[in-house]
Amino acid sequence: MKTIDLNCDFGESFGVYRIGQEEILSYVTSVNIACGFHAGDPLVMRQTVQLAIRHGVAIGAHPGFPDLLGFGRRMMAVSPEEVYAYVVYQIGALSAFVKAEGGVMTHVKPHGALYNMAAKDTALSEAIVKAVYDVDPSLVLYGLAGSELIRAGQAYGLRTASEVFADRTYQADGSLTPRSDPQAVIADEDEAVKQVLTMIRDRRVRSVQGTDVSIEADTVCLHGDNEQAVRFAKRLRETLQKEGVAIEAMRQEERR
Amino acid sequence: MKTIDLNCDFGESFGVYRIGQEEILSYVTSVNIACGFHAGDPLVMRQTVQLAIRHGVAIGAHPGFPDLLGFGRRMMAVSPEEVYAYVVYQIGALSAFVKAEGGVMTHVKPHGALYNMAAKDTALSEAIVKAVYDVDPSLVLYGLAGSELIRAGQAYGLRTASEVFADRTYQADGSLTPRSDPQAVIADEDEAVKQVLTMIRDRRVRSVQGTDVSIEADTVCLHGDNEQAVRFAKRLRETLQKEGVAIEAMRQEERR
Amino acid sequence: MKTIDLNCDFGESFGVYRIGQEEILSYVTSVNIACGFHAGDPLVMRQTVQLAIRHGVAIGAHPGFPDLLGFGRRMMAVSPEEVYAYVVYQIGALSAFVKAEGGVMTHVKPHGALYNMAAKDTALSEAIVKAVYDVDPSLVLYGLAGSELIRAGQAYGLRTASEVFADRTYQADGSLTPRSDPQAVIADEDEAVKQVLTMIRDRRVRSVQGTDVSIEADTVCLHGDNEQAVRFAKRLRETLQKEGVAIEAMRQEERR
Amino acid sequence: MKTIDLNCDFGESFGVYRIGQEEILSYVTSVNIACGFHAGDPLVMRQTVQLAIRHGVAIGAHPGFPDLLGFGRRMMAVSPEEVYAYVVYQIGALSAFVKAEGGVMTHVKPHGALYNMAAKDTALSEAIVKAVYDVDPSLVLYGLAGSELIRAGQAYGLRTASEVFADRTYQADGSLTPRSDPQAVIADEDEAVKQVLTMIRDRRVRSVQGTDVSIEADTVCLHGDNEQAVRFAKRLRETLQKEGVAIEAMRQEERR
Repeated sequence: MKTIDLNCDFGESFGVYRIGQEEILSYVTSVNIACGFHAGDPLVMRQTVQLAIRHGVAIGAHPGFPDLLGFGRRMMAVSPEEVYAYVVYQIGALSAFVKAEGGVMTHVKPHGALYNMAAKDTALSEAIVKAVYDVDPSLVLYGLAGSELIRAGQAYGLRTASEVFADRTYQADGSLTPRSDPQAVIADEDEAVKQVLTMIRDRRVRSVQGTDVSIEADTVCLHGDNEQAVRFAKRLRETLQKEGVAIEAMRQEERR
Repeated sequence: MKTIDLNCDFGESFGVYRIGQEEILSYVTSVNIACGFHAGDPLVMRQTVQLAIRHGVAIGAHPGFPDLLGFGRRMMAVSPEEVYAYVVYQIGALSAFVKAEGGVMTHVKPHGALYNMAAKDTALSEAIVKAVYDVDPSLVLYGLAGSELIRAGQAYGLRTASEVFADRTYQADGSLTPRSDPQAVIADEDEAVKQVLTMIRDRRVRSVQGTDVSIEADTVCLHGDNEQAVRFAKRLRETLQKEGVAIEAMRQEERR
Repeated sequence: MKTIDLNCDFGESFGVYRIGQEEILSYVTSVNIACGFHAGDPLVMRQTVQLAIRHGVAIGAHPGFPDLLGFGRRMMAVSPEEVYAYVVYQIGALSAFVKAEGGVMTHVKPHGALYNMAAKDTALSEAIVKAVYDVDPSLVLYGLAGSELIRAGQAYGLRTASEVFADRTYQADGSLTPRSDPQAVIADEDEAVKQVLTMIRDRRVRSVQGTDVSIEADTVCLHGDNEQAVRFAKRLRETLQKEGVAIEAMRQEERR
Repeated sequence: MKTIDLNCDFGESFGVYRIGQEEILSYVTSVNIACGFHAGDPLVMRQTVQLAIRHGVAIGAHPGFPDLLGFGRRMMAVSPEEVYAYVVYQIGALSAFVKAEGGVMTHVKPHGALYNMAAKDTALSEAIVKAVYDVDPSLVLYGLAGSELIRAGQAYGLRTASEVFADRTYQADGSLTPRSDPQAVIADEDEAVKQVLTMIRDRRVRSVQGTDVSIEADTVCLHGDNEQAVRFAKRLRETLQKEGVAIEAMRQEERR
């Protein structure tokens, strides 16, 4: 039986600013919690960890660039040494809240521009991988399916989760169609659900060029920042269950 | 035989900005490392942890207010909930670097305005104590000798280290003379060394009012940000050793 | 004929975080625009200035503490020199956007904890007043009616606007009832409208102690961050107009 | 008679962190003052403007990326709209201090990665140029000699200052040799002085490829952050004067 994890970014509020719909926690199996660099703050992190534990979803760190103004979405020319230190710092900060609340941190998923840069940049990927490993080698590393990050994680001995997207189209080389391209987003929800099912069952995706590309799907990225996104998550979850796909979080490495 | 710890704040650089003399690590037995709120950044924290391990000094977190502009020295009207979350966050961030480098974190010392406010404010002290305890109950809590923070830590079951100052005068009630008072600082180094010796041996200090006050001295606060401070640290250490005082770091609680 | 200005804080979004209802601009005559310290960012400031010009409302700077995390609402132990510099900086930043868009800046209203501290602290008030005057002596200074800030502004030669609140109760000494007091807020909208009318017509307000206090009302503080607040603004404006009160922005000093 | 401006970046301290040698102000004719994004803070800006006025050097804004952690030296994928707003904001903030102190702002020089990106990127250059123009069209725009920024400034009608470097080598196309290249820096001071003289007198520079490249030299970039740099500035200034070059600041456009 096929198994899939459904993840979403969460805990992206900051100070008086609120983002995110708690209801999404009823439909996903894992959350990636912002750690105070691109979003999130200490109070928000604590509350988010408490919520995640209450809903029984797997908890991951979601480290990003130190760019609150740009929400971590802007590429920055950072060195591998800087990335290593940023990731260690953020995992550590979140892990203290998880420990204080009696929970377990299971994974790490880089955010935004860091995620996108790491997908293609070997040196940055290796810096992220080493940071995760040095803090806790039992953590699962989430990354774009087919990316440098996944390759680097596996090469270093981390358990990895290949992430796929329901609402994004793919290129013939397996990469995501850039957002600048009008074909980048799948607006039709039926099609989005169908794409996920095909990726899970057949380990392939139809590219915008019309060819089939093989793809590994361990986890699907969902959004929790508006009501439509939450409805789609509910629908995707229900459809997958109806089609016999088991919805469950990634299992961690045995603690060493 | 009397035993004393000598501590100093360290790792207070930020980005291109450099503060601190590495040489101080030859004379102290423990360092309090800035965690990125009032000073320090991820790269600096990593390098500082590496330096501390190389010099064999005990490593502590030095959490402060989120006020880089004011170096954490300005009082802020924060709630106990905010302080709790700030301390958990910062301890976690530093602990990840310590773990990645194969070291051990032994203590926590609040910084600047947070230290001063906690000395007198029970609710803030309890928030700090709970934060330390929730992340790791074996950590030693450093605080001003005779303060609310020390009392709160002991009441909650933390091992504490009562901190005394070589270069500051004391009031008849055991508190530090405020810096606004012209008598606040002991400029004469002979006198400063003598004050420390008396505090260690006789568990008392002569107040500016001329009375003797009892004081607990587990650790002495030294400075590492200029060459004169480093020379004083060297001299104090050598004098204490000559006088038969053992210079060593606080011992942690057995890990539970 | 009585004249009143209706003001609200505006432009409090930051990065991806959105706050504020544009519709409020149809009911107020002046806006206080966040300048990037407690809220606002350069893109938001530009868009807000454009909006304010389009709606023909008077534009003011809304300087606050450098505390985005606390939205400038937390008291900080800042020196008058720091406050002076923070206010000059923020007025300057906003004024450049106003100039670039071909508008005119008419006033300055301190935000949050800075506003509250200045209401009682002469040294901080004088620092704010001097900052405003040094950048542009024709600017109108908004402050709490009866406060130190208003007194300091008038003493220094600034035109001032005494601000009153529709939804807050007053003490017998003319100060606002602290928010910690259960009687602090007027939930009943009829009563809130009536309080404003009395303040404008009779230059007095009934205190919670039951006595009448004289009060100067040049401008009323309204809120624009939720729909109910916008509806109240509409209602207050319409009632005031029906009662023969002219709704218009403060006039600036002649440019010197 | 040939005329040249000597400029240096100044006012790069932040909070307790100190950078810069005041002595450099005796040798340069203009300073570029950090505006709080990559360095500088409100107190530092005020003190720096006061110093500059006391030394009679021309005052310019030195806007950079919002990246204190990276000192504005890291490329960031910013949009032209963001750059426009960042530059307007920072010019405005500095101009308020200049006005408060009774001085005049004469120029704008982008900092670090913004300077380097603008040298090659037309859209970013145009955003910077429009920002400068919209705030004050009489400001002189400093940029790398031969860069897109200078071209964009001239096309838009700004007075420009082509900046050359004493201690950097040039490529056959007139660009600076990248710092990653071992030949990037001219360590020999005699050679550095000679390069500047040739650029001023002959309007050309010998490239590392051995060819002569024509270059416009309105201003020379000097450094003020260490004693050796200050000595070199003194020497360059004295040599230029001995060789009959007039050392004076750029003249501004007549105020329109």
